[in-house]
Parts: sequence; C-alpha cells; structure tokens
Amino acid sequence: MTVEESILRIRRQGFDKETIYTCYVTKDRKLLGIVTVKDLLLAEDDETLIEDIMLTNIISVTTHTDQEEVAHLFAKYNFLALPVVDKENRMVGIVTFDDALDVIEEETTEDMELMGGMLPSEKTYLKSSIWELFKNRIPWLMLLMLSATFTGMIITSFEDALAAQVALTAFIPMLMGTGGNSGSQSSVTVIRALSLDELKFADLPKVLWKEIRTSVLCGIVLSIACFAKIWLVDRMLMGNEEITLLVDAVVCLALLVTVVAAKIVGAVLPMVAKVVKLDPAVMASPFITTIVDALSLLVYFLFAKMLLKV
Amino acid sequence: MTVEESILRIRRQGFDKETIYTCYVTKDRKLLGIVTVKDLLLAEDDETLIEDIMLTNIISVTTHTDQEEVAHLFAKYNFLALPVVDKENRMVGIVTFDDALDVIEEETTEDMELMGGMLPSEKTYLKSSIWELFKNRIPWLMLLMLSATFTGMIITSFEDALAAQVALTAFIPMLMGTGGNSGSQSSVTVIRALSLDELKFADLPKVLWKEIRTSVLCGIVLSIACFAKIWLVDRMLMGNEEITLLVDAVVCLALLVTVVAAKIVGAVLPMVAKVVKLDPAVMASPFITTIVDALSLLVYFLFAKMLLKV
Repeated sequence: MTVEESILRIRRQGFDKETIYTCYVTKDRKLLGIVTVKDLLLAEDDETLIEDIMLTNIISVTTHTDQEEVAHLFAKYNFLALPVVDKENRMVGIVTFDDALDVIEEETTEDMELMGGMLPSEKTYLKSSIWELFKNRIPWLMLLMLSATFTGMIITSFEDALAAQVALTAFIPMLMGTGGNSGSQSSVTVIRALSLDELKFADLPKVLWKEIRTSVLCGIVLSIACFAKIWLVDRMLMGNEEITLLVDAVVCLALLVTVVAAKIVGAVLPMVAKVVKLDPAVMASPFITTIVDALSLLVYFLFAKMLLKV
Repeated sequence: MTVEESILRIRRQGFDKETIYTCYVTKDRKLLGIVTVKDLLLAEDDETLIEDIMLTNIISVTTHTDQEEVAHLFAKYNFLALPVVDKENRMVGIVTFDDALDVIEEETTEDMELMGGMLPSEKTYLKSSIWELFKNRIPWLMLLMLSATFTGMIITSFEDALAAQVALTAFIPMLMGTGGNSGSQSSVTVIRALSLDELKFADLPKVLWKEIRTSVLCGIVLSIACFAKIWLVDRMLMGNEEITLLVDAVVCLALLVTVVAAKIVGAVLPMVAKVVKLDPAVMASPFITTIVDALSLLVYFLFAKMLLKV
C-alpha cells in the first residue's frame, strides 16, 4: 500500500479503534512492521510505499510476557502502544500506554504492601472490608511475633548478665531500633533499584562494597554521637551511676557492628530473593528487622561478656 | 481553518514537534480548544471548520502546578499530552505522557525512600557515592537513635519491676517488634492511598473506625496465639519457671493494647501530616516505630505494676 491509501484506510476504519496513531503492518496475520500516523503524515510523497517507511525492528511482547515487564518497556522507550504476538509471531492484540500506567501503579502498590509486611490486596483501602484487611495483615504479624521467640531466648540465656549490669537493659530498644532502621534503609533502596531494573544480581559485589563502606561511615558517626549522648545525658544529666565508661563503650561497639551487619543483610537478602524468583519486596523491613534484632542482641551480649566480664 | 488546511499545516510543520497527535487551537496565544489528529482524520468532511470539532472543555495545567498533580491527571484521564498555560491562559508549552511516566516513577521512589527513613536522592543507587548515601541516611538514623533515649528512660524507671520479674525482659523485643509491624502496616496502606488520591483528610473518621476494628481483630488473634505460644514453648518446652499464668497474661494484654494503639497511630499520623502540608511518607515506619516502642513499653510496665504488683 502507499501512504495515501493507508491514510484513507485509517480514515475509514479508525472510529472504533483504541489507538490509530501506531499502525501494524501484517501479512497473513504475521507482524512485519510498524508505521505511525506521524510517519504517514510527514511522508514527503503520497505515493511512497509503506514497506519503504515502516520500522521492521519491532519491539513486541508475547501473550505470556509478565505485565510488569511490559510496563518496564513503556517506561523505558515511551511507546504509545506495543503489539502483542503469539508464539508464531502472529499479531493478536495491542497494549497501550494507559494500560502500562495502570500496571505501574498497581505493581508499586503491591511492592509497598509487601514492604509493609502485608499480603497484596486487590481493592483500594476504603473499599476493603475489615475481614479482608485482617486477612492481609495477620500472616506476617503472626510469623514475626512467633519468630521473636528467638530474641526472647537470647535475652533469657543472658539473664545473668542483665541482672549483673541492669543498665544494659535500657539500651536494648535503641540498639534494636537503630539496627532495624539501618537495615530497612538498605533494603528499601535495593528493592526499589531492583524493581526499576537499575540493579542485577551480578552487581552484588558492587552493592556489598558500597554498603560496607556506607555502613562503616554511618556506624562510626552514630557510635561517637551515641557515646557522647549516653555519657552526657544518661550519666551526667540523669545521674545514672550504673553507666560506666566501659558500659558506654559496650553499647557503642555493639551499635557499630549492628549497623554494619544490618545494612549488609538489608542489601543482600532482596538480591538473593530475586535470584530464587521470590519478590524482593518480601524481604523488606519487617523480615529484616527480625533477623537484625536477634543479631544485635547477640553482638551486644557477647561484647558485654567480653568487656564487662558479666 | 478547515480540517484539510489543518492536516496540511501539520504535514508541513510537524517534523520537529514532540507530539503531533494533540493540536492546540490558540488565538493571540490564548488557548481556545483542542483537536486531535484522530478527530482530523476521522472528520467526515474536509471542509469542516476546526472550531466546530474542537473540544473547548480543556483540562490544562499552569506553570505553577506541582509535577505530582500533573502526573495524577495523566493517570486519571489517559491523556497523550496536556497543555501548560500561564496565569492569563496563554499557552506556554505542553507536557507529554512520557514525562508523566517519569514523574510517577520518581515520586514513587521518593515516597519509598522517605518511608524507609532516608532523604530522597536524585541519583540512582549505583551512581550514588558513599558520601551521598551517607548524607541521605544519617539524619534519620541519628534522630531515631537520639529519640530512643525515651524508651531507655522508661526502662530505667521500671528497673525495679524488671529486677523483680526477670522473665518480663525477654518479651520486650517481641512486644516492640509486633507493635512496630502493626503500625507500619497501617501507615504504609494510608500513605499509599493518600498518594493515589484515594483518601482525603475528611475520611479520617472512616479510617479510624476501620483501623480500630481491624486492629482489635488482629490484636485478639495475636494475643491468643501469643498466650498459647508462651505457655507451651517458653514455659513447658523450655522450662522457664519464672513464667506464671499471670506473667503470660500481662504480656498478652500489653500486646493487644499495643497492636490497637500502633494501628491507630500508624493510620492517623500520615493523614495529619498531609493536612499540615508535610509529605505523609515522612511519617512512615521508622518514625511511627519510635512512638510505638515507647507506647508499648509504657503499657507493658503499667500492666505489670497493676497485675503483678511489682
């Protein structure tokens, strides 16, 4: 067909089509090329043949392509529409950019829900019933509550140390909290980078090296600040005589190690999840916090045993 | 102009334009109407005047519209392009759907970074230097570490109770962890719904009522499971004789109250943030966890004082 014939055909048939701006050139339903209305309108000669101006280097998706992957193609190449073909390269339909927009919003919501420790839901918040909210939220809450048995066991087995140095207990929430926050910072960053395709599993050594250096920097600054704060506020201002310089040192050393460990765990777990075909978002804060909680307590008590001889 | 004249003009001038599919009808640079290439091509008569087929009910944005709002308009109405006008309704430019896609991805990444307790960054993860990562991560870590002084003070002031009932200490991580997870579930849900415009501040009573019922349901189920687990595992299996039925009850009552309080705080704070023009995502997990940590400890020790007379 020529450009003029094509425009005439679009003018006759375009009424009930979802998009007319991208036209697909097919032969026996097999996809041969793409031509846009812009190409047609801007063609210098109405007698030009479509086969001379069509793009044959086509990006298409198959009926089995994951919707997330399709959305990525739109975000990357700014297409208006993508052709969908079957296994024999026969054209079976199209996806348009507004479908992609919907998918991107859906997938992001799903990622956020997983990262918040919930099962993804199909409905919007206000439309979800109490029962649906409950069903999405209880599994992770239950799992994490039960897994806290380990942190409980760690504390119980160091009961004597805590009894000998009562001041140690007061710093448990700070240690676990800072560890949890450090870990979720890394995991959120890595999960987002993975879902935007900015990161692949092969980047693991780079990620590790980056996180180790960042976490040591964060850990040292936090530990120095913590050391000063404990001495100035808890010891001098509040007059807690149980806090010795050595107790202060134990807390801050444990803090340093916890921050580094948390950032490594937080960055590595989502990448491992990706490799074993799990959604990296499952590995987000709640899960990592539980691991980091146990780690930070172990480190804390080991330092206490070593340095305070309790 | 007629349809035919318009098509000719597009064919002459369209080469260097970002989009030719949406055309803007202006007079003295003021925006009067919109006509799409689809409308032009499908017009039945080439002599039809543009003013007869153009849409005059135009959705436009101004030079001062927030980019997030622009992206929402694209997501809602599936436009290919939106006209940008100045205060006098003079057309000054256009935004196209691929700009909107980029903005949506950017804003989502920013939300996630804030929710993970980081300052939003301009660069992708692999391109960020150690120093930039450090600068984005340390402020919240520092703030949350210092605010943990309160949880420390609460524990210190109940030191005698903990010394009298050593078994109580072992459940602190479980209580704080479950509280934190409950709170972040609600906050993530509400923050996402706010950013998708599914929720307004006026919905606060509805949200409160939903969260109260969901959290009571979650709290009761968790408390019963926790009661059984403590008795069967910690007392019977591990043989911890310090755990009495009353200690078990104190833990589970505190758990129930903590879950309900955490879900209410988690849902309300992001909505309040929205009203005072803060980004709701700032109110996410790390911030809420710190509040919930303090709350859960207070509730725990008060129940312990009341029921165990320590």
